[in-house]
Amino acid sequence: MSSTAITDSPAPWLRDNCPCDTCRDPRNGQKLFQITDLPPGLAVGSVREVPGATGAGWEVVWEPDGHRSLYPADWLDAHAPTGGARGTGGDGRTEADKELWAAADLAGRLPDASWDAYVGDRAVRIHALESVRRLGFVLLREVPRRDRMVLDVAETFGFVRRTNYGELFEVRVEPDPNNLAFTGALITPHTDNPYRDPVPTVQLLHCLRNEARGGDSGLVDGFHAAALLRREDPRAFDVLTRVPVEFSFTDARTELRAQRPLIDVDPLGRIREVRFNNRSIGTLHESAPVLAEFYAAYRRFGELLLRPALRLDFRLAPGDCLIFDNTRLLHARTAFAESGARHLQGAYADLDGLGSALAVLRRDGAAA
Amino acid sequence: MSSTAITDSPAPWLRDNCPCDTCRDPRNGQKLFQITDLPPGLAVGSVREVPGATGAGWEVVWEPDGHRSLYPADWLDAHAPTGGARGTGGDGRTEADKELWAAADLAGRLPDASWDAYVGDRAVRIHALESVRRLGFVLLREVPRRDRMVLDVAETFGFVRRTNYGELFEVRVEPDPNNLAFTGALITPHTDNPYRDPVPTVQLLHCLRNEARGGDSGLVDGFHAAALLRREDPRAFDVLTRVPVEFSFTDARTELRAQRPLIDVDPLGRIREVRFNNRSIGTLHESAPVLAEFYAAYRRFGELLLRPALRLDFRLAPGDCLIFDNTRLLHARTAFAESGARHLQGAYADLDGLGSALAVLRRDGAAA
Repeated sequence: MSSTAITDSPAPWLRDNCPCDTCRDPRNGQKLFQITDLPPGLAVGSVREVPGATGAGWEVVWEPDGHRSLYPADWLDAHAPTGGARGTGGDGRTEADKELWAAADLAGRLPDASWDAYVGDRAVRIHALESVRRLGFVLLREVPRRDRMVLDVAETFGFVRRTNYGELFEVRVEPDPNNLAFTGALITPHTDNPYRDPVPTVQLLHCLRNEARGGDSGLVDGFHAAALLRREDPRAFDVLTRVPVEFSFTDARTELRAQRPLIDVDPLGRIREVRFNNRSIGTLHESAPVLAEFYAAYRRFGELLLRPALRLDFRLAPGDCLIFDNTRLLHARTAFAESGARHLQGAYADLDGLGSALAVLRRDGAAA
Repeated sequence: MSSTAITDSPAPWLRDNCPCDTCRDPRNGQKLFQITDLPPGLAVGSVREVPGATGAGWEVVWEPDGHRSLYPADWLDAHAPTGGARGTGGDGRTEADKELWAAADLAGRLPDASWDAYVGDRAVRIHALESVRRLGFVLLREVPRRDRMVLDVAETFGFVRRTNYGELFEVRVEPDPNNLAFTGALITPHTDNPYRDPVPTVQLLHCLRNEARGGDSGLVDGFHAAALLRREDPRAFDVLTRVPVEFSFTDARTELRAQRPLIDVDPLGRIREVRFNNRSIGTLHESAPVLAEFYAAYRRFGELLLRPALRLDFRLAPGDCLIFDNTRLLHARTAFAESGARHLQGAYADLDGLGSALAVLRRDGAAA
């Protein structure tokens, strides 16, 4: 390597990444200066290669303040801007970091793990959490059928997100349901709680009993469906990323509203979140031409989400606990006899905690 | 009103809003059909005005399926698309629904309320929660200085969001701080936890003791600062809405990363979230020209956020509990003597729950 990694880098970027102990707190790695603390006219004064105990590096003396920074050569190799290519390291949340799937893609390779292995074996747990990140879900088997066990499952990778439905919610036939989930009705593919912002990003469903006729489960990869829409009807895709959609939920103690597009893209246009829920979509307030365009696109996306090829069907057995990405996967169920015994316990959590748990498992595994 | 509100509305939009009991579950108001269930070629067959016990309405008979919908005239007045104007009813989360402020705008009208009045008086509580929605914060006074009381405050309007810092966190000098917040250091204006996604949208800080020299508080309206940047340097504003910024936090049990722009706008370009935290900003991976452009814009925004005119300074007294919008306001504190007794307890919660609590208070108040 030559010094071009230094001289080709914008000075404020390079200086902002100075690893010295006056720039970063050695106790916690937090940056100790503001971007506004850097002197105006910042420039590399001199560069020289220096040997180091942990590998070679490059020392920069900065103008005009004389600050010295030492950049390990490894760090420059990994991070310096080279030629114009954007780094590949996303934060794992957009389509760029996912494996999109249709039902057939998962034939014979449903991501699952037994509870005992998940708890006892680091590699299994890494695989399970990675499945949620890459495929959008994992199915844990033989999870103890204990009341409130779903909360313990959530705590293995993050924190339970309480909502108006409680710390956990009972998915079974209720006498006075505030949500159709709590009846025996068929539920078409949807994401949960689109009327919340921030939406709960992870959902868990733990099956305690499933003896009813019907009540089978379905999952659809919403990112895949959105990507198909973009390919088949780019204009409809564009409309669904641009029109804020009102979602609402009301009961005796709750009145939630949020306005977000059905397909949320990041600033680079990559699919990042999908919201789809016919039960709670509210009244859109737009001009007639925008409404006409939106409804055509909405219907088109809805048709796509119902394609049988996209839907993975399976049946939750007692002890199964499904963990899935609620910003990406749509879930569904067939109708079941209200007299039958079907009982799930559900809870919400968040993807950031799951990502952290996964990163720590990997880090500690690498260090072991 | 004439029938033009009907005939000028796109048919799928109008039908999607049919209020009849077969289209919406009368128990919970949830929609019972999918957009894909509507017949192709949907059109208004006939329209007639009908008198009603609760006011006049319009009955539509639909082609081709003969479904009948009855739309109250009031509803059409409020919702039908008229001429091309977008409805004004946002979800309260973008700059369009905020009152942006500089410090002088709040002179003599700091939004505050005593705890007793907040608990006992619906109007006071509405005013307090509305202050968080419109101004970004409220200061509750004389909140009992009990350990963990901050959690009770959060439960008055929503649910505590647990994080790696715990259900609550202690803001005081810690022997081995994993965050500079837990030292006596000056902390410049920042939003919390930008390395979380979803970020906690509400923060609470409850002052139990504040006898140290220093340790005064500051708030800056990040939406106002972003709007100023847009006016003064539109190009810099644009860059900050487009470039995903890596934020990270690492300690023994945590490894969080998120990539989001510093200024998040909704699909209509309205400011919706601000993230700013020098301590946890990571290494950006972009081409050299993008890095150069980003750093110039970042610095410009940083300078703006430090303008004294924007910063509201005050001192938290024992018993004060500050509740603020962490997607909008930046908070800061002056340095304090580490030997001094300063102790806050903090917690996170979310804006959606706060908005729901406010809507329910208003609804129940209107019904009372």
